[in-house]
Amino acid sequence: MDVFLEAAIEQARLGLAEGGIPIGSVLVHDGKILGAGHNRRVQQGSAILHGEMDALEQAGRHPASVYRESTLYTTLSPCSMCTGAILLYGIPKVVIGENQTFMGEEELLQSRGVKLQVVQDKTCIALMEEFIQRNPDLWFEDIGE
Amino acid sequence: MDVFLEAAIEQARLGLAEGGIPIGSVLVHDGKILGAGHNRRVQQGSAILHGEMDALEQAGRHPASVYRESTLYTTLSPCSMCTGAILLYGIPKVVIGENQTFMGEEELLQSRGVKLQVVQDKTCIALMEEFIQRNPDLWFEDIGE
Repeated sequence: MDVFLEAAIEQARLGLAEGGIPIGSVLVHDGKILGAGHNRRVQQGSAILHGEMDALEQAGRHPASVYRESTLYTTLSPCSMCTGAILLYGIPKVVIGENQTFMGEEELLQSRGVKLQVVQDKTCIALMEEFIQRNPDLWFEDIGE
Repeated sequence: MDVFLEAAIEQARLGLAEGGIPIGSVLVHDGKILGAGHNRRVQQGSAILHGEMDALEQAGRHPASVYRESTLYTTLSPCSMCTGAILLYGIPKVVIGENQTFMGEEELLQSRGVKLQVVQDKTCIALMEEFIQRNPDLWFEDIGE
């Protein structure tokens, strides 16, 4: 198991333990984690703190050159918003835990030259499957799909 | 002047008074402002709180049906990240103060069916022109363009 994907999964588990949606993410530059985050929709009533967004926010402000040498790890395929953030900052590579429970904007990312690695990790899939089964209203609340 | 664009400009001015980047936004539903926000990159060291993101965050959690009947007002053409958030929530209309100092992802928004109204408001343009002239390093810091 990739140590950085493991760190993203640890964030997802942390979110689950807080009563939240189990999606986690880490931003990695030069072999080090700049920021680690998880979805905070439930915990903070946040409309924008998805796992990837939280990782970017926890990383703080960096110059463009740092983002352009970084890799974003996320337990779940990035939604439109997180995809937009990846494009804004020019992050060149995204490692995706799984895209079976939700398929994000992978086509858009690839069309803009972002390299994707989809792991289909069993732990990531199990975390989401169990969560959606137990909390369908919460999962479908905001984007209604 | 549209009262909601005026409210977005008021947010931009508030950000400027705080020493921040003068971009503001309001999310409007059924004739009422659900959330008003402004760019907080400088004030909070935030990588994700652009004006539009802050307006969404200040609005709090809403069901999908609310977003799909809302209009987002923003003083500046939405970047990739804010565009992604608009697409995530299915916001059908965006009123844009100006796109002369920065052209965002308007083509992507339109290709997904989002209706855009670009005002080319002189106040919005002047706020950004003055800011960029005085703070070029800050404006070009994160996305390096």
